[in-house]
Amino acid sequence: MTVRITLVGAGPGAADLLTLRAVRAIEAAEVVLIDALVSDEVRSLIPPGARIIEVGKRGHKPSAGQDFINRTLVRYAQQGFNVVRLKGGDPSIFGRAAEERAALEAMGIEVAVVPGITSASAAAAQFRISLTERGTARRVLFATGHRAEGPETDWESAADPATTVCLYMAAHDFAAIAAALIAAGRRADTPAIAVCDVERPAARMLAATLATLAARLAADAFEGPVVILVGDVCRRAVSSPCAPHFREGERRVSLPGLL
Amino acid sequence: MTVRITLVGAGPGAADLLTLRAVRAIEAAEVVLIDALVSDEVRSLIPPGARIIEVGKRGHKPSAGQDFINRTLVRYAQQGFNVVRLKGGDPSIFGRAAEERAALEAMGIEVAVVPGITSASAAAAQFRISLTERGTARRVLFATGHRAEGPETDWESAADPATTVCLYMAAHDFAAIAAALIAAGRRADTPAIAVCDVERPAARMLAATLATLAARLAADAFEGPVVILVGDVCRRAVSSPCAPHFREGERRVSLPGLL
Repeated sequence: MTVRITLVGAGPGAADLLTLRAVRAIEAAEVVLIDALVSDEVRSLIPPGARIIEVGKRGHKPSAGQDFINRTLVRYAQQGFNVVRLKGGDPSIFGRAAEERAALEAMGIEVAVVPGITSASAAAAQFRISLTERGTARRVLFATGHRAEGPETDWESAADPATTVCLYMAAHDFAAIAAALIAAGRRADTPAIAVCDVERPAARMLAATLATLAARLAADAFEGPVVILVGDVCRRAVSSPCAPHFREGERRVSLPGLL
Repeated sequence: MTVRITLVGAGPGAADLLTLRAVRAIEAAEVVLIDALVSDEVRSLIPPGARIIEVGKRGHKPSAGQDFINRTLVRYAQQGFNVVRLKGGDPSIFGRAAEERAALEAMGIEVAVVPGITSASAAAAQFRISLTERGTARRVLFATGHRAEGPETDWESAADPATTVCLYMAAHDFAAIAAALIAAGRRADTPAIAVCDVERPAARMLAATLATLAARLAADAFEGPVVILVGDVCRRAVSSPCAPHFREGERRVSLPGLL
């Protein structure tokens, strides 16, 4: 028997933004290793009998090391369990999928990845903008403000006014990032929005400019996962998103009969 | 009654990569305006009684103009039909969502957007790479090779070796784009892959380098939608993707009891 693990993108939070493939993987799971950013709504789809192992990394709290995660995944997979590694967003975009894949494949374990809706895309849809727009933005750059993801970034490549910049894990350092973007030539009055808890009941959006968003963020305590979008497309952001009509009055996905 | 239209991201092609929200919107549709890139598998979820209007733009064939699309959407919405505008991938990324939204909102019609899995993300998962990778790629740039999306692009911003570049609609002009990337400083031997029909039964991947991929593409006729990924992360691409174990032997989503 081939030993396999499925790395599943949990999307931004709303269970109905999971893909069907993700829902099936979760419903078949016997062991789930889960990050702190995965929402309660998605967690509610995990079968009651499954073992849930919290391996979230959050801020400065103690967290499971990558070695522990890898060892745990390997052990359960080798014991024959159907193991799901559940991560917020899309595992291929700042989800460290490559590291876990490399560690597992070195142990002879196959890894399948189920892509997920990444938070910038969900934030755009919820707050009524497009990441690209003919005549306004012909490129989209996803970058991280998290230093662990790589050496200090130069921001020259984000100076192009026709590029929408999506910043992950950047709320903490946004003042420095905004200053670097402006120094690289991006207009200080470029529209910028910060969205926290996108597609969750507590979703909120702050609209400002590249020059002013950091102060707004500091004044208006944003808790939870934040994505920041910078670019002229953000000018159209509307803070009271319309709910798609087919889910009016309905917030949770009901598990029975889902598939 | 508020008149609404739902713009739904159909993802790359496999029906089980639709989000639950997208499936619900499609199943509730009475009128569907649909692009040529939407797969047969996704089309099969449209209710038998729904009116399907093909508005695909493909290559040099005659196609529906944006004005016709907007007028048709408005007419059916005003007649009280549940109207779905179905687009491949994610409507917010090179999906022209903003244009249709602006035209419809000008007519007093609300537009809800359901995000979709974009093809670069699906291609990465299927061919076993990550778009970001600690120490290798700390940024992801989505760009188009399609001139209608904007003026000629300068490629300086894609020269950073730690940026994975995802090119949409770029197969036709890839020789010129690759030359521009190399002129901007990107290494000629940077790994590059082209994926056509990602997550469809005919999915294929060509692996080469930035310097050689255009010739490979020309020699090996790629039909259908193509996404090109450029960056060191592509070095790990594996051409025989492993199917997630929970859908072995199963290619189609069965409609009855889906939700």
